Amino acid sequence: MSDPQQDYDELKAAGLTLDLTRGKPSSAQLDLAAPMLDLPGSELVRAADGSDTRNYGNVAGLPELRALFAPFLQVPVAQLIASNNSSLELMHDTLVHALLSPLPGAPVRWADAGRVAFLAPVPGYDRHFAVCERLGIDLVSVPMTADGPDMDEVERLVADDPSIKGIWCVPKYSNPDGAVYSDEVVRRLAAMPTAAPDFRIMWDNAYSVHHLTEEEPELADVLALAAEAGNPDRPFVFGSTSKITFAGAGVAFLGASEANVAWWLTLTEKRTIGPDKINQRRHALFLRDGDGLRAHMAAHRELIAPKFAVVEKLLTDAFADTPGVSWTTPKGGYFVALTVPDGLASQVVALAKDAGIVLTPAGATHPYGKDPHDALIRLAPTLPPLADVEGAMAGVVTCVRLALARAGTRA
Amino acid sequence: MSDPQQDYDELKAAGLTLDLTRGKPSSAQLDLAAPMLDLPGSELVRAADGSDTRNYGNVAGLPELRALFAPFLQVPVAQLIASNNSSLELMHDTLVHALLSPLPGAPVRWADAGRVAFLAPVPGYDRHFAVCERLGIDLVSVPMTADGPDMDEVERLVADDPSIKGIWCVPKYSNPDGAVYSDEVVRRLAAMPTAAPDFRIMWDNAYSVHHLTEEEPELADVLALAAEAGNPDRPFVFGSTSKITFAGAGVAFLGASEANVAWWLTLTEKRTIGPDKINQRRHALFLRDGDGLRAHMAAHRELIAPKFAVVEKLLTDAFADTPGVSWTTPKGGYFVALTVPDGLASQVVALAKDAGIVLTPAGATHPYGKDPHDALIRLAPTLPPLADVEGAMAGVVTCVRLALARAGTRA
Repeated sequence: MSDPQQDYDELKAAGLTLDLTRGKPSSAQLDLAAPMLDLPGSELVRAADGSDTRNYGNVAGLPELRALFAPFLQVPVAQLIASNNSSLELMHDTLVHALLSPLPGAPVRWADAGRVAFLAPVPGYDRHFAVCERLGIDLVSVPMTADGPDMDEVERLVADDPSIKGIWCVPKYSNPDGAVYSDEVVRRLAAMPTAAPDFRIMWDNAYSVHHLTEEEPELADVLALAAEAGNPDRPFVFGSTSKITFAGAGVAFLGASEANVAWWLTLTEKRTIGPDKINQRRHALFLRDGDGLRAHMAAHRELIAPKFAVVEKLLTDAFADTPGVSWTTPKGGYFVALTVPDGLASQVVALAKDAGIVLTPAGATHPYGKDPHDALIRLAPTLPPLADVEGAMAGVVTCVRLALARAGTRA
Repeated sequence: MSDPQQDYDELKAAGLTLDLTRGKPSSAQLDLAAPMLDLPGSELVRAADGSDTRNYGNVAGLPELRALFAPFLQVPVAQLIASNNSSLELMHDTLVHALLSPLPGAPVRWADAGRVAFLAPVPGYDRHFAVCERLGIDLVSVPMTADGPDMDEVERLVADDPSIKGIWCVPKYSNPDGAVYSDEVVRRLAAMPTAAPDFRIMWDNAYSVHHLTEEEPELADVLALAAEAGNPDRPFVFGSTSKITFAGAGVAFLGASEANVAWWLTLTEKRTIGPDKINQRRHALFLRDGDGLRAHMAAHRELIAPKFAVVEKLLTDAFADTPGVSWTTPKGGYFVALTVPDGLASQVVALAKDAGIVLTPAGATHPYGKDPHDALIRLAPTLPPLADVEGAMAGVVTCVRLALARAGTRA
């Protein structure tokens, strides 16, 4: 076994500049959608219903694109809205609307409700947490399991406290741990009694078609289960094509009950005369139908699965038998969650940074940026070319080994 | 002189279906931007700074497009933000942010400020009023003059009442009366003492390059004048390409002081990872530069000036000598404001509707949809083909004549 400090000194001397911070598609992935850059062309600006996509109007978005995505997001097409380029915007604005106008079933708007809190399954997505922090909504951590949030804990918290108004969920290939919510977890979320009559599930189905293997798990249908349980207005479903077509120029979707959608449209009609329907038309022309979407996602998989395989191989080679070091092997999505012994995550991130390898800050996966165990590191291997992923992960391995060696020395 | 009732009966019998309600560009105007529908093409996705417009990032928008529009919106490029497809969104969200987070110079966020009111120069733009109504911001009417709002009245209202937090302005070719704010009005708006330390001007420069004649008035520079007067944070400037390129798929802009822009970006970064930069790139490639923009607007003028000329001619032929009937002859923008004797506007709109000619509801140009004089009708002649504008306006003339005749009979 080589000397960890010597290995690290050599790593630093190599002068790398590598980045595993964010779940961004690579240029090669974006190239898959290159034909869109000439679309729709001047002949194809009329939507399937004959309307002119270039002009104002149609706040709910283009019916043909909503129809294409409805089955993948498990939302009836009449209840699915196609919007501009960011599902984060739709989540943010939904909470803003709830703060300023009472949600269906809400006794008052949340701005007048005193404390408002959301459950944050951890580890989770830092941008979800940041939206709540910005809007003055408290975050209450609940632990994730391989099947989704710890439902005993969730049910206990929501049963008695009416200030808990919602929960963040990335139900498929969760960010960052890759968990797929089990049918039982979805059913309990949809059906659990909540003290708040206006409790909402923010169902960020960001990776619904983003498979890394041929296994393609089907989520339980949260909207249907909530309706069956007598809670039709509980879920807001979100999705986007940011990691399907273009990360900055995709189309985002919002789906919910008829009452929620009517509420959302009434408020949104005051804000805009309609979304960019030319871009929606461009998407419909390029992706065509469900088979077109599936084929396109298979092409993404070919590009990124090898990067996840490299992460898996280097971690296995180095730490298969190391107590306290573990990692996820996701079957989809954009992240690997690496767990190191308590107290070492921020040290590993700092060591990597000094060696030119930028990782997501330790703690980013937790509310307020604080991982109480300082043990989790989120790895995002999609953006760099394969060789750089390999170089960066070799460096991460070196940093983890040095941190472990130092901890062993101290112990 | 023919019999007004008989003329109206013939109009109804003709079974028209015509629409002069909204300021929408015609298909021919949208066709002017047809080359954009094949842009950017796969070779041109990198911005001038080398960044990939297809990926996430850059909340402030593409520098080359901001530079193109900066002189036309009279905002330094560093303080101009390029966003998605709707300036109405930017106005709405700016007020939402002000409600939820204190503006620079604000003692508290507006949600905690008790009553919040805005001045609404009337006649004005119904969507501005609707944003305030939706957000619980009261509207206080002030009269418009040919030079802009009645500044004696504005100065009187803002001097003593700290709950008056802002004013809506469409400073060039105002909606609907076509007024261009005089230098003196702009200077007084920028410099007037306000009881509210966080008073804001919502400067919706929607028609900055939308000339109908070769006269191209230059507005006074509200940002510069406000800074000179010691009120740098007072104006928020808005604009868009909705009536330049595509009404549904343009680019919207926000400009303000450095402090306002920093505030706005900090809050917006929680909401989105960035705007659709491919569409911004598409705009920059198509419009190229200031000369390209001017040439494009001249082509718009060729299409729509004849429609405004028809409105002017038919109204002049019919009512040049009719007491109580007057109208604007705008030198730019999208609207003609027709004034009829008090109490007749809603009758004219109802008569036209029964004859198949849809006009903007009487009162829409006033807060809460109530014109106390029931005298103003907004005409929007850009969308229909020229022959339809002529047909619709002949019908409007018939309806006004009938309403006048009935009023004369009753008197």
